[in-house]
Amino acid sequence: MSATDFRLTAVRTFGSPLYVYDIEAIRKRFDLLIDLLGGRFGISYAVKANPNTGLLKAIRDKVVTFDASALAEVERAMATGIGAERITFSGPGKRRVEIERAVELGIGELVLESLADARIAAEAARRLGRVQHVLVRINPASAPRAFGVNMSGKPSQFGVDEEDMEPVLKEIAAMPGLDLIGFHIYSGTNSLNPEAIADNFSIFAAIFRKAAGMVGRKPKKLIFGSGFGLPYLPEDAPLDIEEVARRVNPIVDDLRADPTFAGAELALEMGRWLVGPAGWLLSSVVAEKHSRGTDFRICDAGFNNQLAACGMMGSVIRRNWRVSNISAPDAPEATYTLTGPLCTTIDVIATRITMPALAIDDVIAIENSGAYGLTASPSRFISHPEPREVIWTGNGFQDVTESLLNHWSIPAHGITQGLVQEEL
Amino acid sequence: MSATDFRLTAVRTFGSPLYVYDIEAIRKRFDLLIDLLGGRFGISYAVKANPNTGLLKAIRDKVVTFDASALAEVERAMATGIGAERITFSGPGKRRVEIERAVELGIGELVLESLADARIAAEAARRLGRVQHVLVRINPASAPRAFGVNMSGKPSQFGVDEEDMEPVLKEIAAMPGLDLIGFHIYSGTNSLNPEAIADNFSIFAAIFRKAAGMVGRKPKKLIFGSGFGLPYLPEDAPLDIEEVARRVNPIVDDLRADPTFAGAELALEMGRWLVGPAGWLLSSVVAEKHSRGTDFRICDAGFNNQLAACGMMGSVIRRNWRVSNISAPDAPEATYTLTGPLCTTIDVIATRITMPALAIDDVIAIENSGAYGLTASPSRFISHPEPREVIWTGNGFQDVTESLLNHWSIPAHGITQGLVQEEL
Repeated sequence: MSATDFRLTAVRTFGSPLYVYDIEAIRKRFDLLIDLLGGRFGISYAVKANPNTGLLKAIRDKVVTFDASALAEVERAMATGIGAERITFSGPGKRRVEIERAVELGIGELVLESLADARIAAEAARRLGRVQHVLVRINPASAPRAFGVNMSGKPSQFGVDEEDMEPVLKEIAAMPGLDLIGFHIYSGTNSLNPEAIADNFSIFAAIFRKAAGMVGRKPKKLIFGSGFGLPYLPEDAPLDIEEVARRVNPIVDDLRADPTFAGAELALEMGRWLVGPAGWLLSSVVAEKHSRGTDFRICDAGFNNQLAACGMMGSVIRRNWRVSNISAPDAPEATYTLTGPLCTTIDVIATRITMPALAIDDVIAIENSGAYGLTASPSRFISHPEPREVIWTGNGFQDVTESLLNHWSIPAHGITQGLVQEEL
Repeated sequence: MSATDFRLTAVRTFGSPLYVYDIEAIRKRFDLLIDLLGGRFGISYAVKANPNTGLLKAIRDKVVTFDASALAEVERAMATGIGAERITFSGPGKRRVEIERAVELGIGELVLESLADARIAAEAARRLGRVQHVLVRINPASAPRAFGVNMSGKPSQFGVDEEDMEPVLKEIAAMPGLDLIGFHIYSGTNSLNPEAIADNFSIFAAIFRKAAGMVGRKPKKLIFGSGFGLPYLPEDAPLDIEEVARRVNPIVDDLRADPTFAGAELALEMGRWLVGPAGWLLSSVVAEKHSRGTDFRICDAGFNNQLAACGMMGSVIRRNWRVSNISAPDAPEATYTLTGPLCTTIDVIATRITMPALAIDDVIAIENSGAYGLTASPSRFISHPEPREVIWTGNGFQDVTESLLNHWSIPAHGITQGLVQEEL
């Protein structure tokens, strides 16, 4: 079956809108990356990119650790059957109870954003008579140019600023209950430029050397935030991952040649690049309208189901993503504004997009929807039925829908809660 | 108790983040508006603004109809105990099954966006041996200047364009199974300008006259989309609702003086203005950081819980909303960047906001969060526990939480579905 086939089959089987993840394609991306990096890095999968527990189970054997950014992400990772020791927990707004619970669970590594995080973790560990492995997240003073979104060199809520790190690292290194085993840097996201990624890794390496020197110990673990991007826009070229490896591997080898780092385990933290391209949001055309010179096609998914594709997730200007007509790929081309079903003018998937002509019931695929898709979207807005999620295994589908939102009915719990209330 | 008191009490009782709706304040806004309009309009509440079934029940006696924009909103309205005959169903992307089901349910009025909608509805009604009351949504060729967001005078997915309406209205008027009882116009939203609102209503009245003339019948029902706005930004003045009434009432009286319209029931469709100002998202400060000259306060709610307040819902430039410190309102002022807990640089509530100093565990209130708050936000992003929703009744709280998302744990259904899958 071709890619087109299984996606259409999925819609015919499960209805639309629908998220489909091609799990073999995802696993191949893992393999390619691990191979190109020649074992230098273990993959730390960022659960937030796609936290579906069915998907997490299907990639569990490819990851060294799951990186969680909230306690519920820790629980999601554990729900796949892995132990807490294979989970790292990072994030700028960790609540006291989250840190305490993570320590109780025996989390593999806690990534500290601050001295305050450290004190809470140390206290929790001492109470339990344990020593908690921790890394400190460092926020670099500089970032390479040409990076997608970067968090470095400017005021930031993330981590300990590089220029302030010495006293913080020393205090954490001396804190009973904690073992400072290494450092974590994630300073930019969604880059399509191998040179920028390599420059960024050089900055990381320099900071890791400086930090290790400050605390006078050999790091056991270093986490490199990848920042590998996806070609969301039609004019984008995919990231040249071979070129990334060619540039990054020598930087890593050079770091490793330093006896301080010879024994360190290196983790590459990433999510988007691995799962994004092997996921699609599939949506059917519900209505058509010609209005004042523009041909509209109204689809059954809008920004309620794919916020980023509709340009509402950090984009200043909405630009068309790659959208294809998978039910009539050979139809003559036409130009449309594609909207979702929501009662608001901002519910736009694409403007002036030229693609094979779309009739009612035709199915579009929004590409690169495997990461930051369903869970990053306001599915309850206007109460349309939420997309199901299915995994394509290469010879069949696995329904991994976790939605508790309505599928043509209100959640029973919701109604009940509403109805059992006494009249006001 | 002062307003500050009950919100703080709510957080102490239910935790944070938390949505609180002051139901008496909402009911007073209904009363004020109904009073100022002197019975000219019945209120049609737009369920999408806040679809919480507990809230819907609490305002049920103040509304003439609930306006639903998806079938599940019809079901939500019915879950309050009202009959389908008191519900109108509108929306640009209605699916065939939604229209058919609405007709089966005996929906009061179906608002048609197109001939295609009409044909589906007529067929369904004839199959059931019924006559379905319908209105046609008209998209004006012009809109007043100074309107907030407007949908008129440009290509639009909404309704039948004014310049194209004659043949469409005539065909629908002649369609067996349907009774074309009137018209609906909603051409702009969130206006703070009484003159613009009145000008808009004049445009509506003119179109209604033209449309009624085309079909040669006296409308029984006309729906006016209100577009009344809220002062989201600190520099905005609230809409002068008395002035709106002073300007709008004569327009309505003039229309009514025409025998064609003397018997028409008029509905004012609105949501935002009624419920928005009496709702707050309350969030606690989780962490503080001084970074490169900026003081950050990291809160336990971010764009996952209030997308619009974080500038990600149709705003080109994020601007600070009104945010107050309700736990220490008399503290000396300080200037902050307020962020949420998410692992992304775009999770910003306010930048360079000057307010009473915030310490860890202090509580902020994001104002005007009663409409387009929780359900318009991507609550599942990064799996933080979703805010509960409570109604303040004036002397106590009613927990109207409908969330099926995690409150410190993964939804059981989600885990189960993940775990029962066979290994890949």
